[in-house]
Amino acid sequence: MDERRTDLQLDTLDGWKRTHTCAQLRATDVDQEVCLMGWVQYRRDHGGIIFIDLRDRTGLTQIKFSPEEHPEIHEKAGHLRTEFVLAVKGTVLARPDDMINPNMATGEIEVLVSAFKLLNTSKTPPFLIEDRVDVSENLRLKYRYLDLRRPRLAKNLVLRHKTAQSVRRYLDDLGFIETETPILTRSTPEGARDFLVPSRVNQGSFYALPQSPQLFKQLLMVGGLERYYQIVKCFRDEDLRADRQPEFTQIDIEMSFVEEEDVMTMAEGMMQTVFRDTLGIEIPTTFERMTYDQAMETYGVDKPDLRFGLPLKDVTSIVRGSGFRLFAKAELVKALKVEGGSVLSRKEIDDYTDFVRIYGAQGLAWIKIKEDTWQSPIAKFLSDEERAGLTKTLGLKPGDIVFFQAGAPDMVNAALGNLRLKLGERFDLIDKDAYRFVWITDFPMLEWNADEKRWTAMHHPFTCPQEGHLEYLKTDPGKARAKAYDMVLNGNEIGGGSIRIHSTELQQEVLAALGIGEQEAEDKFGFLLHAMEYGAPPHGGIAFGLDRLIMLLGDVDSIRDVIAFPKTQKATCLLTDAPNAVDRNQLRELGLRLRETSKSE
Amino acid sequence: MDERRTDLQLDTLDGWKRTHTCAQLRATDVDQEVCLMGWVQYRRDHGGIIFIDLRDRTGLTQIKFSPEEHPEIHEKAGHLRTEFVLAVKGTVLARPDDMINPNMATGEIEVLVSAFKLLNTSKTPPFLIEDRVDVSENLRLKYRYLDLRRPRLAKNLVLRHKTAQSVRRYLDDLGFIETETPILTRSTPEGARDFLVPSRVNQGSFYALPQSPQLFKQLLMVGGLERYYQIVKCFRDEDLRADRQPEFTQIDIEMSFVEEEDVMTMAEGMMQTVFRDTLGIEIPTTFERMTYDQAMETYGVDKPDLRFGLPLKDVTSIVRGSGFRLFAKAELVKALKVEGGSVLSRKEIDDYTDFVRIYGAQGLAWIKIKEDTWQSPIAKFLSDEERAGLTKTLGLKPGDIVFFQAGAPDMVNAALGNLRLKLGERFDLIDKDAYRFVWITDFPMLEWNADEKRWTAMHHPFTCPQEGHLEYLKTDPGKARAKAYDMVLNGNEIGGGSIRIHSTELQQEVLAALGIGEQEAEDKFGFLLHAMEYGAPPHGGIAFGLDRLIMLLGDVDSIRDVIAFPKTQKATCLLTDAPNAVDRNQLRELGLRLRETSKSE
Repeated sequence: MDERRTDLQLDTLDGWKRTHTCAQLRATDVDQEVCLMGWVQYRRDHGGIIFIDLRDRTGLTQIKFSPEEHPEIHEKAGHLRTEFVLAVKGTVLARPDDMINPNMATGEIEVLVSAFKLLNTSKTPPFLIEDRVDVSENLRLKYRYLDLRRPRLAKNLVLRHKTAQSVRRYLDDLGFIETETPILTRSTPEGARDFLVPSRVNQGSFYALPQSPQLFKQLLMVGGLERYYQIVKCFRDEDLRADRQPEFTQIDIEMSFVEEEDVMTMAEGMMQTVFRDTLGIEIPTTFERMTYDQAMETYGVDKPDLRFGLPLKDVTSIVRGSGFRLFAKAELVKALKVEGGSVLSRKEIDDYTDFVRIYGAQGLAWIKIKEDTWQSPIAKFLSDEERAGLTKTLGLKPGDIVFFQAGAPDMVNAALGNLRLKLGERFDLIDKDAYRFVWITDFPMLEWNADEKRWTAMHHPFTCPQEGHLEYLKTDPGKARAKAYDMVLNGNEIGGGSIRIHSTELQQEVLAALGIGEQEAEDKFGFLLHAMEYGAPPHGGIAFGLDRLIMLLGDVDSIRDVIAFPKTQKATCLLTDAPNAVDRNQLRELGLRLRETSKSE
Repeated sequence: MDERRTDLQLDTLDGWKRTHTCAQLRATDVDQEVCLMGWVQYRRDHGGIIFIDLRDRTGLTQIKFSPEEHPEIHEKAGHLRTEFVLAVKGTVLARPDDMINPNMATGEIEVLVSAFKLLNTSKTPPFLIEDRVDVSENLRLKYRYLDLRRPRLAKNLVLRHKTAQSVRRYLDDLGFIETETPILTRSTPEGARDFLVPSRVNQGSFYALPQSPQLFKQLLMVGGLERYYQIVKCFRDEDLRADRQPEFTQIDIEMSFVEEEDVMTMAEGMMQTVFRDTLGIEIPTTFERMTYDQAMETYGVDKPDLRFGLPLKDVTSIVRGSGFRLFAKAELVKALKVEGGSVLSRKEIDDYTDFVRIYGAQGLAWIKIKEDTWQSPIAKFLSDEERAGLTKTLGLKPGDIVFFQAGAPDMVNAALGNLRLKLGERFDLIDKDAYRFVWITDFPMLEWNADEKRWTAMHHPFTCPQEGHLEYLKTDPGKARAKAYDMVLNGNEIGGGSIRIHSTELQQEVLAALGIGEQEAEDKFGFLLHAMEYGAPPHGGIAFGLDRLIMLLGDVDSIRDVIAFPKTQKATCLLTDAPNAVDRNQLRELGLRLRETSKSE
C-alpha cells in the first residue's frame, strides 16, 4: 500500500487555468464549465461512478467520473488514490435533493468531469489529511508538509497572515515606517543567552542574533524616524519550555514625542483593528487598567485572568497572633475562597498541594466550611476571634472552601495566584468566549535577584522611572516605579513596553543604581549612551509576541501549531534534521574546533 | 564647542500633543494655535529676534522667538543650539512678502512661539544634518543615528517601507499568504558559504542561516499553501563586494498549479503596482522578452541594459581567414561599433584595454574610421575583402570606432558586454529617466564549472527542464534549457525564478545529470525528495532582491544607503562594533574553542 505508483504517466498543465477554488461553487453556478485543481481527499465508487472530494487550500468540491458519459476518463480515474494531484475540467451539476450536503460549502453541487490531468501521484500518507488525526506530534513534525495540508493548521497560517496584515495596515495608516534592523548583531550578555554566529572574515569574533531590536529601535528614534515598527524574528537560546521556541516573532513598535498614554492608546487601537479584521469581534475601545501592586494584591500575578473572580485576600492581620505558628510568624498570609468548593475531594486537594510546591510552598492549608463545623487540619489552632475575622473578611458560607498560603510575599502570591487559575478551570468559572483585556501599569523599576544578591532591572535598563522616583532608586529601590505597561489578555501577557530614558544623565543614574559601572556600561551599550548625547527625543514603545497572539486569536493550545516549521522542545527540526554536524573545513574556516566532549557522537 | 550643555533643565512633555508636522502648515493655517515638535536645524539671530528652522521627519518650519512679545521665552531660547530637541506652542503667522521662501513647503508661514519645552540638548554633531555632507562614509556609519536624520537617508527608508507595503498589498489581494520560514535551519553546503550557529542544546551540531527559503517554500507548496510570499532576510557568508551585504532582503514568492507565463504575469503586475505606488510612474503592462542566447549574442551579458543600443556583432566568419592571426584562429570574434567614437583619446582606449582584462581579455583591438583611412594597430593585417565585410556588417562611417574581442565565447562576451556599458556612459547614450524592463528566458540548465571540471546547475538543482530537454542532459548537457526566467531592469537582475521539478523521478534524473549521487542527495535535501513523493503539485516562483530594487527606485548608488544599519565591506558594524569577542564561558557552553590562530589579537 505504501508504494507510490510510478507506472502512471504524469500530465503537464499545458495552459490549463483554474477558474474556481474548491470552496467556491454554488447552486447558482450550475451548468457552468469550470476548471478545478487540487488533491484527492476521498474517493468512493458508487454504482459504477467514481466520486472524489477534491481539496485545495480553501475547501472541498465533489467531482464525479461517469462511465457512460466519458468512459475513457472514467477508466483513467480508476487509478486515482488519496493525495494524488489533479486538474479537472467539467460541468457544474446540481446534486439530487437527497445528496445535498448542508455541512459542506459546496454541498449543493458536484462537477461532472469531462477531462482531467494527472499532475502527480502520491504514496499513501502516514496519517489522514483531516483535522481529527490521532498521531504523535513527532510524526506530524517529520511530515510537516502533510500536516500543513490539514485544514486546521492551514487555517492557523492564514490567521497569522491576516493578523500581520491587519497590524501593518493599522500602523501604516498612522505613519509608522516598517524598518528592518540587523539579524547579525552584537552580543550584549544581558537577559537571556544569545545565539552566536562565528565570523569568518573576523576570526575569533562573533555576531549575536538579536533577542529583540530594542537598542536599534531606540537608535532609530535618535535617528529621527519618529514612528517605527517591524514584525521581526527574535532569538533566545534558553532552555525550552512547552510554549517557547528558539526563534519567535515580535511586533515591535517605537514612537517619539510620546508619553505612556499615547503608546497605550495606539496599542488599544491596534488590538481593536486586529480583532475586527480577524475575528469580526468588537472589543472595548479603552482597556481596564490595574497597577502592578493591585494585580499582585488581588490576583497574586502580574498577568491576571479577569474572566473570573476568586480574588486573593490578605488575612495577615487577622491571624497575626494565631495559635497556628506558621500563620502567626509569617510576613504575609493570604486566603483564597471558592464558593461551593467544599466538594473537592481529598485527592484533588493533595494534587493542589503538590502543584503549589512548584512555587516554593511547603504545603497548602485549607478549611472546608460545613453547616456546623470547619473541617480542616488547621481549624483546631484557630481562636473564635480568628474564625470570626475570617468569616467576616472572606464572607464565608457553608459549602465554601478556603485555601491559605503563608510566608514570603513572592511565594504566597505565586502559589495562590496560580492555584486560582487551576480552581477557575476546575469549577468552570471561565467564560471561554470572553476576551478580557487589562493594562498592568506602575511596574517596579527593579526586582531583587536573590541568586546574585542585587537589584536588577525588571524590564530593561533603558526603562524610564516615573517622575520623582529616581530618588527611590538610591533610598528605597523596591519602591521606585517605572513608566512601564503590559497588555494582558485572558491571563496572558501579550505585549509589554515602556517609556525609555532619553537623557544621558538619567540613564547614567539608573545604570549606577543597577550596579552597572561606567566601563561595563560603555562595553555593553556604549553606542546607545553616546547616541543619547546627540539630541535623543522623548520616546517609548511596546512589543507584542505574535505567536502568542495567534494562539489566543485562533484558540490554539500549542505554539507549534501557529508556526509553519516549528522546532521541538529540544530545539531540533524533525523535518530537516537541523541542527546537524558540519564539515570540518567549515569549522576551520571559522577558526573554531569542537571541544573533546562535543565530539562524542 | 563639542561639550554638551548639562546645566540646562530638561522639560517633560507633560501632556503636550503635536498638532502638525513640520511640513504641514500653509498660508491657510494663519492665526491657528499649533504645537510642533522636532530638532533645531538652523538658528539665526536677526534684529533681536531668534529664528529657528525646526526639523522633523517630514520637513522644516521656521519658528521665531520675539523679545517683545514673550521676553522670558526669548531668553530661554537663547540657549538653543543645533540638534536640540523642542516642543513649541505658538501662532501661525504669514511671512512678510519679501520673506516668503518658495523653496520650502512651509515657506509662506512662520510660527511665533508663545511657550516651549526643551526636551533635550545635544553635542555639536560631527557633521551637518543636511544632504550635502562631505565626510567619510566610515564617520557616517559610526554616527549612523545622525546620518539617518539627513533627509536623503530618511527618504530611502520611507521608500523602502512604501515598496514593501505596495508589494504586500498587491500579493495579499491575489490570495498570497505571507508565511515565515525558519532562520535557524539546516546547513546544506551548496552554492555560497553558510553562516553557522552552534547549538548549545545539541553540542557539536550547527544551525545554518538560510541563503534563501528555497526548500521551505517548495515544502509549503507540497503542504498545499498554493500561494506563498515572504519579505525575508537571507544570509551569505561570501567575500563582500561593494554592492553586497552579509544579510540582505528578498521578496520571495512561490505558486502552485502554474507555468512560466503565470509567474511572469504576476511579477509584471507587481512591478507595475510598485512603480505606480512609489514613483507614480506607469510602466508597460507586459515586458519585452529575450532568450538567454539572444542576450548573450547581442549584449554579451544575461542582464542587458536596453536603455541604449551598441549591439555586439559576430564577425567571426568575416575574419575567419584573416592575416591577423588572433582573429583567424579564434573561436569567436565580436565587434562593437560606436558612432562618432573616434573622438576617444589614446588614454581612454588604454583605460578600456585595462578594463577588459578584468574579464580575461589579453588586449583590446580597435579601429578608428577616418574619412580616408582606418587608423588602427591592426588595420594593416586586414584584407580589402575583410574591410568591405566589416564595413557592410557594421555599417561603418567616418568618425566611428570599432572594438574587437576574439577568443573563447565567455571571455569575448563578458569583455565586450561590459565595455559596452562603459561606452554607453562615456557617450551619454543612457536615458537616466528610463526604466527598461526585459525578461531573460530559456536559460541553460547547466553551466560548465572549469575549476571543478563538471556541469553544475545554473540556477539550482530544483529547476525544471523545458519539455523534451531532459534528454539533452545526458547527450549534450549545454544544450538543455530550463523553465527559468530573470527580470532585468536597466541592466540589473532584479528578480529571478523558475518552474520547479515536482516529480521525484525527474528530480532524480536531474540530480544524476549533475553528478549528485543518491546518498549525497539524501544527505543534503532528502527531506525535499521525500516530500515530493506525497503529491507535490506543479509549482514555481520568483525572488526579488529588495535592496537592489530600492536602489533603482530611489536612484541610490550605494546599497548601504538603503539599509538602516548596514555593514561595511569587512562585514563589521561601525556603530555597534559587531562582531565582537565573546566571553570564554559562552564558547564553553557551546562546546567550542578557538583555534590558536584565531586568538592572535
